[in-house]
Amino acid sequence: MILYAVPLSSYCAKVRLCLALKGRTIDVREPPGGTYRSAEYRAIVPSGTIPAIVDGDFVLAESDTILEYLEEVFPDPQLLPVDPKARARARLLGRLHDLHLEPRVRALFADVQAGRMAGGAAAAIQAKLDAIEANLDAEGPFAIGSRPGLADCAYPATFAIIEAFMPLFDWKPDFGRRTLRWQAASRAHPAFETVIGPYRATVAEWIRARRSPN
Amino acid sequence: MILYAVPLSSYCAKVRLCLALKGRTIDVREPPGGTYRSAEYRAIVPSGTIPAIVDGDFVLAESDTILEYLEEVFPDPQLLPVDPKARARARLLGRLHDLHLEPRVRALFADVQAGRMAGGAAAAIQAKLDAIEANLDAEGPFAIGSRPGLADCAYPATFAIIEAFMPLFDWKPDFGRRTLRWQAASRAHPAFETVIGPYRATVAEWIRARRSPN
Repeated sequence: MILYAVPLSSYCAKVRLCLALKGRTIDVREPPGGTYRSAEYRAIVPSGTIPAIVDGDFVLAESDTILEYLEEVFPDPQLLPVDPKARARARLLGRLHDLHLEPRVRALFADVQAGRMAGGAAAAIQAKLDAIEANLDAEGPFAIGSRPGLADCAYPATFAIIEAFMPLFDWKPDFGRRTLRWQAASRAHPAFETVIGPYRATVAEWIRARRSPN
Repeated sequence: MILYAVPLSSYCAKVRLCLALKGRTIDVREPPGGTYRSAEYRAIVPSGTIPAIVDGDFVLAESDTILEYLEEVFPDPQLLPVDPKARARARLLGRLHDLHLEPRVRALFADVQAGRMAGGAAAAIQAKLDAIEANLDAEGPFAIGSRPGLADCAYPATFAIIEAFMPLFDWKPDFGRRTLRWQAASRAHPAFETVIGPYRATVAEWIRARRSPN
């Protein structure tokens, strides 16, 4: 199986975290032609989007769809809970990331050069963080229970972006008690740090280059 | 189980189609206080979004998360295929609807009063329709195979909106061969028409009211 990914994409980091939790090493490649917009990449992945996996003659895009597929073809360790209500809560957290939190955090990249957040951005992101806090497990420390699972894979990269932007924008988002506990548990998890350590460095380098006077 | 829904929401229609395919009649209610923005509704569904289901003391928002939950708690008839690759294709089509097609179609509601589409909208929607066509089953007639499933639930309402807007905007989207076959199969399916017949009338009435000189 091949994973097409680029270093700065939080959605690619999500798939890599899932693979790390599964203990699977697969062939990770950057898109041919140097960008996912290349004709060479579209010849392999018709949607021209990343991340995408190629499993034999099967090509699959969209990170959450990929995560569900990995859960089915690599069932051990199981990364969705057994109970249908807990499974639904895990999937909901995935969706709260992709549809609600991440698009607003991604928009901040456009504000880096100016060094200030667009009006309303901090309040909008805070509302999303509050919604996520409200859906985290009461016991924790992970999103749904004591072990990391699919619901935990999307967030570490997006939190790394937020943390990199906080000093830049003099921004102090209010992470709730459960979110702080969850972030600490994720940082302390070896499989996560294998992926997120390099990811943090990639984000820092991107900011440094964008902020550089040259 | 209670489903909170409003008549014009295509995401609510999606959940109703899933329930119709499951042969389940559940208690469908409009949000208390007359709108999903009401404090009364937020007291029941903290996210304040529709659709949402309430199953005992369990509250769940986000339509695709609800569909996966319904598939797990009402497993008969099964609406996801058995094969992991086919399941992934079904989930991908759900995501192509929610993240790619539907936001662009929804934006057209803002153009109804003026009677013309915003620049670039037709081309952008065409690109999404082409991507969906490319992911439909070769055999059909439904999205993934000969019977309707989860992948089929999101599209009928969005196609009904497109069809209502076509004469208004003098717009002729190019539906591919598989898409046309799929639309015909969906229209001929009794469970679908039970939901989509009234949905078409709701959309037509909304357009009539918005276009009325009074």
